[in-house]
Formats: sequence, structure tokens, C-alpha cells
Amino acid sequence: MQTQVVIVGGGPSGLLLSQLLHVRGIDSIVLERKTKDYVLGRIRAGVLEQGLLGLMAEAGVDARMKAEGLRHDGTLISYGDETFRIDFAKLTGTPVMVYGQTEVTRDLYAAREAADGVIEFNVENVAIHGADTDTPSVTYEVGGDARRIDCDFVAGCDGFHGVSRQTIPLDLRTEYEKVYPFGWLGILSETPPVSHELIYANSERGFALCSMRNDNLSRYYIQCSMSDRPKDWTDEAFWQELKRRIPRDRAEQLVTGPSIEKSIAPLRSFVTEPMRWGRLFLCGDAAHIVPPTGAKGLNTAASDVHYLYTGLRQFYETGNSEGIDSYSDRALARVWKAERFSWWFSSLMHRYPDQSPFDLRMQQAELAFLRSNAAAQQAMAENYVGLPY
Amino acid sequence: MQTQVVIVGGGPSGLLLSQLLHVRGIDSIVLERKTKDYVLGRIRAGVLEQGLLGLMAEAGVDARMKAEGLRHDGTLISYGDETFRIDFAKLTGTPVMVYGQTEVTRDLYAAREAADGVIEFNVENVAIHGADTDTPSVTYEVGGDARRIDCDFVAGCDGFHGVSRQTIPLDLRTEYEKVYPFGWLGILSETPPVSHELIYANSERGFALCSMRNDNLSRYYIQCSMSDRPKDWTDEAFWQELKRRIPRDRAEQLVTGPSIEKSIAPLRSFVTEPMRWGRLFLCGDAAHIVPPTGAKGLNTAASDVHYLYTGLRQFYETGNSEGIDSYSDRALARVWKAERFSWWFSSLMHRYPDQSPFDLRMQQAELAFLRSNAAAQQAMAENYVGLPY
Repeated sequence: MQTQVVIVGGGPSGLLLSQLLHVRGIDSIVLERKTKDYVLGRIRAGVLEQGLLGLMAEAGVDARMKAEGLRHDGTLISYGDETFRIDFAKLTGTPVMVYGQTEVTRDLYAAREAADGVIEFNVENVAIHGADTDTPSVTYEVGGDARRIDCDFVAGCDGFHGVSRQTIPLDLRTEYEKVYPFGWLGILSETPPVSHELIYANSERGFALCSMRNDNLSRYYIQCSMSDRPKDWTDEAFWQELKRRIPRDRAEQLVTGPSIEKSIAPLRSFVTEPMRWGRLFLCGDAAHIVPPTGAKGLNTAASDVHYLYTGLRQFYETGNSEGIDSYSDRALARVWKAERFSWWFSSLMHRYPDQSPFDLRMQQAELAFLRSNAAAQQAMAENYVGLPY
Repeated sequence: MQTQVVIVGGGPSGLLLSQLLHVRGIDSIVLERKTKDYVLGRIRAGVLEQGLLGLMAEAGVDARMKAEGLRHDGTLISYGDETFRIDFAKLTGTPVMVYGQTEVTRDLYAAREAADGVIEFNVENVAIHGADTDTPSVTYEVGGDARRIDCDFVAGCDGFHGVSRQTIPLDLRTEYEKVYPFGWLGILSETPPVSHELIYANSERGFALCSMRNDNLSRYYIQCSMSDRPKDWTDEAFWQELKRRIPRDRAEQLVTGPSIEKSIAPLRSFVTEPMRWGRLFLCGDAAHIVPPTGAKGLNTAASDVHYLYTGLRQFYETGNSEGIDSYSDRALARVWKAERFSWWFSSLMHRYPDQSPFDLRMQQAELAFLRSNAAAQQAMAENYVGLPY
């Protein structure tokens, strides 16, 4: 087989890139290790920046998001008995959109299928060849059947554990990592959200987040021990703990119900440099991970897609390789900003095992400063709604 | 003897309080453990906030500072080969004043002496009695001669190691502390400063600061090991190391010369709560210490003096004790903001023994964000010039 761009990974980044390229007449084939149902079963983030909304519009996949997404003009932050609001719309002119990553992925699949886009599911033993030559290719197997695609470029959208990053020789990459000493226990429940806007809660007992997917689908998280397992937490225990971490008036209003999903996610910061090796480009989790505090994961993947799509389009439309040559530098410049914000916001909101009483007072002082200082709120809001591409 | 306010400690906080009270007709006696020459020999900070300048004006001790002080409208921050400027005057409308703490103290002594203010030097065995009663007193010895002063109030301006904080029963105080794993090696040299404005430098080899006292008196610092002693560092070794930590063009311009003072200061964050016990009030280093990054030490002592002076004046002029009753809460609210800023700026600028490559990238990302983001610069500038009292 032959195509212009092989996209390894059929999650939202790979699909979005594929659809954007399609709109500009550039062919791609997407390779996905799992089934479509599996991909759609993954519960992930749900807060979308304007930059991603713009890419969805450009890809022609924003109709349902516009109809069903929830526009959020701000967010609430609580610590102890104090609650304050960061008004994104007023400070930056820009809201964020609450619309589940699962829904984004579903819309992208629908668009790819409508356009007869080629997506190979259940692929095994993917290998990328000749990434540092002008004639790369990708081999893989489906049901024991060996296949090969010759292409111009390979986009590695296959996540942290994928083959794409591993394809770049170790001596050519530098990896940066921080593993946080706690996890997030999250549940989905078919209950009305306790707040119209997200509540990020710093409490003596640890972090909590009140989020949502829609008006009758709540998403709640509590900071938990790395050694906890979801089965250690009954729904009742989860709700009790959540109530103790959020402001009292919210706890009293909280509508509880059975969880329809319960899982624990570790928190990690990770970046690999560079994000390009020859004709192989890494996008999203394949190149970087952020802790979920601040919802930068999918959004940072989207900014990679923006830079790569722009570079590939420039190359195919004009023959100019400036955009793909500068892809890694441009993508990384924004990645590090998102990494910094996610690390800062995580550090501000969680309990750490080694925190001294002084460290805890620094958290409170920083929250008090954020509460009272317009410039600090401005900086936070600009980061939360997404720095410009 | 009898007076209205006994002030324990004849450093700048105690002298400023004494002089401010004098202007309003309130009597005080200052007790100082050392000699005047010893106090004036201590080299300390030299960047004054507007709030302190206002207090100096109110105390009638600002004439020489106005004539000789250097107005700084901004500061330079460097990291690696990058340098950027924070424009305090443009961002906040407020400059800072470079004028040595030694000079402030000298001017205050001159004013106290001109007003026949009572300052007892060389006092030993100071003890504060009945602080939790309406009739406190202070006993001490001078040259073996035991003395006692009955008073209305006691102001503890006697620093971190003084008796005032220790007078408050341990079970009534909570102390917060962080000791930083490095020191500052500082020299004074009679050379023209390398820059008209301060340069705060984050380098691979550790922090450096280019500061000054006047146009021919430079003050330079380099981050050093806690185990270093000043005699381990020749002047030549100091200059060599400084040059390696500041931007190359500055290093080339640096005028070196013999040091006239060389010392190592530890870095500590410390706060005790509350800052009042009955009729005893803690001011400045007696209650809190900041690391010197950001020059908040003397300025935060000055904000304590402001709140205490305002409260005492209200009490003596109207009989209303609201100001002295709320002294601790008001002073601490601002103290914690200065603690946060000093901790943040220290964390941003130094090398730490346990920093991972990821942590180092977070420093760089934060510096890059500060360099490029107007709101982040605004928040930094507001803190540096001093948050409102």
C-alpha cells in the first residue's frame, strides 16, 4: 500500500490530523492497535481550549460539539472554607468548552468514515522503517496478515507506550519526567453536576475535582494513594470522601448515585526532545504527558496536530519544508508552557507526603494571592483557556 | 524608670518605630544589646519599598535617602544567555529605592539623638514581664547594674535570636520554617556596579545577584554551599565564579577590585504565629525571616512597624484598641504574602541539590513564561515593589 502520511494511533490526535489532512486533499492511513469500541470506551478529559475548537471547525467536525458542548466562562477554586472564581471570559475574552474526549473521538470517527478514510484496527507489531530517509515505510500485521505501507511521512500519535517514540534512537532523545506521589480516583455518575462550573478543591484531606460531561453526567475525582485500587473504594466511600474535600455548601447539595465508571489514573509529567526524527513526527502523549490538573492533555496534543498539519500542508501545497523542519521547536515551545502550568497547578492543589507545615502555608498563601490579585488571575486564566498557538 | 513603649532592639525596625511614635508624642525607650557602631557595621539589604519610604517621610528621616538613594524603575533577570527586564515603574507606577539598610539605621540614630530619644546600648539579660497583664515591665542590666522599666506596651524588635519571641509561651505559638540547602556568599567592593539596575541571574552554576549601594559601591552575591566559609573564597575566586554566572556581555564589563566585606548568609523562611501576646508585639525578624531573594526582609519589618505604629497611635489618641487588637492578623496577612513571594523567587532562581532535569526545565519554563507574559510580569512587579499595606 501507499499513502502520503501514515498515522500511527487512532485516538483523537491521530483522527484529527487525518481529518484535517483530508480536508486539504492529503491522504493518510490510520493504524490503531485496538478496536473502535475500545478507543471510544476510554474515559478521558473533557475541557477543550479554543485552539482545539478551531481545529475541529477546520476539520468540519464541530457541529455536535457546538450543539451539545457546555460553554464555561470560568472555574471555581476552593481551599479550606474559601471559594473564589476565575472568570476566563472576562479576563481573556475566551471561554472553554466542556465536551468529552470520547465525544470528540466519536465525531472524528464519523467524519473519517463518511469520507471513506482508511483506518486499520487491531493492528499488531507496528514497525516504522527508514524514518531518517526520504522513503519511510510502516509494517504491521492484522490477524496474522503482514502488511506494508510506503509513505512520505509518519505521524506518531500512539501515546506514551506506543512504538513511535521508541523508534527514535535512544542517543538522539532526551527524556524529562516527574512522577507524582499520588493518583486520581475518578468516577462517572448519571447525576446532575454539583456546580455549573468546575470546582478545583485544595483540602486538608487532599485534592478533589468536581467536573462533568453534560447536565446529567457528573465526573468527580479525588486524590488517592498510589497503592489504592478502584475496588478498594465503594461508591459510598467515594462520595463521603468527596464531600469532606469540597466546600460545605456544595457537599450539602451534592447529588450522589451509582458510579458507571471508576478508575485510578497516575499523575506524570513527561517530555521527550526532539519531537521529530527525519520524517517521523511525534504528537500528543507519544511525546509528552501532563498531570490532568488544568486539563492540558488533549489540548496540548491538539497544538501538536496544529503545528504538524500546518507544516505538512505547507509542504504539500508549496514544497516548502520550513513548517515541518521547525515542527519540533514550535511544538515543544508550547508543550513546555503547558507542562509548567500543569505542574504549577498540580503543586498548588495537592497534598504531598513530604509537605512541611511551611509548605502547606505556601500553598495557602499562593491560593490567597491568586484569589486577591488580578494579575495572578490573568496569568492563570490565559494558561487555562490556552496560550496562543 | 517608666515609659509608654519599651522597644527591645535598636536595629532599623525598633528605631523607626521609636521615631514614628516620637513624632506623635508617644514616649519610648529603646534597648540594644550591642553598641551603635556594631549595629551600623552590619551589612544588610538595600532595596526599599514605597511603604518604607512613606514611613521614613512620616518619621522625618528621609532627607538624605531622597538625596543619595538610587531610584530603580526596574530589574534585570537572566537565565542562560537570556536576559529580560521587569519594568516596575511602567507596570505599577512605582519604583524601588536602593539605599543601604546601614544608611537607614544611621539616619534613624541621628534623628533619635537629635530628639534626645533614649537608647540604652550594651544591655544584657533583658527580660519581659507581665506581657499578658495590663502592667508589663522590662528588666535588664547595663555593666552589671540592674534596671527596670514599667510601660504600657513592649515592642519586640530584637530579631530572630532575641528574647521577645521566646517570651511568648511555646504552647501559644506555632512556628513555620524552611531552611534552604545553600547560602549566599556576598562581597562589597568599591567598584562601579556592572549594571544600573540589579541583575538576578539563574545559571547552571547557581544563582548570582549583582546589586549595589551607590555608584561606587557594588554588592555582589553568589549562591554557595552551606559548608563554605568566607575564607575559602579568595576575591579572585569570587569574581571568576560571578563572571561565569551572569550574562557574557556583563561579565566582560565587570569591574573587579578588592572586597571590603565578605560574608556568607544562610537562607531561611520562618514565621511565628501569632505576632502578639497581650501587650507584647513582635516586629520584623523577631517574628519572621525571608530568604533575601526579592529583598523583602527590611520591607516586611517596616510593614509590621506600620501596623503597630498605627495601632498604638490609635490607642493613645482615641483610646480605641482595635488597631492593636488586630495587629497580629493584619501584619501576618502581609507577612505571608512576602514569604510566598520570597520563597517563589528563591525557588525560581537557585540550583537545588535534589533538582531533577525535569525540575530544571520547569525553572526555565517559568522564566520563559515570566519573560513573555505581561500578567506574570505584572504579578511579579507588584510583589517586588511591595503589596499595599
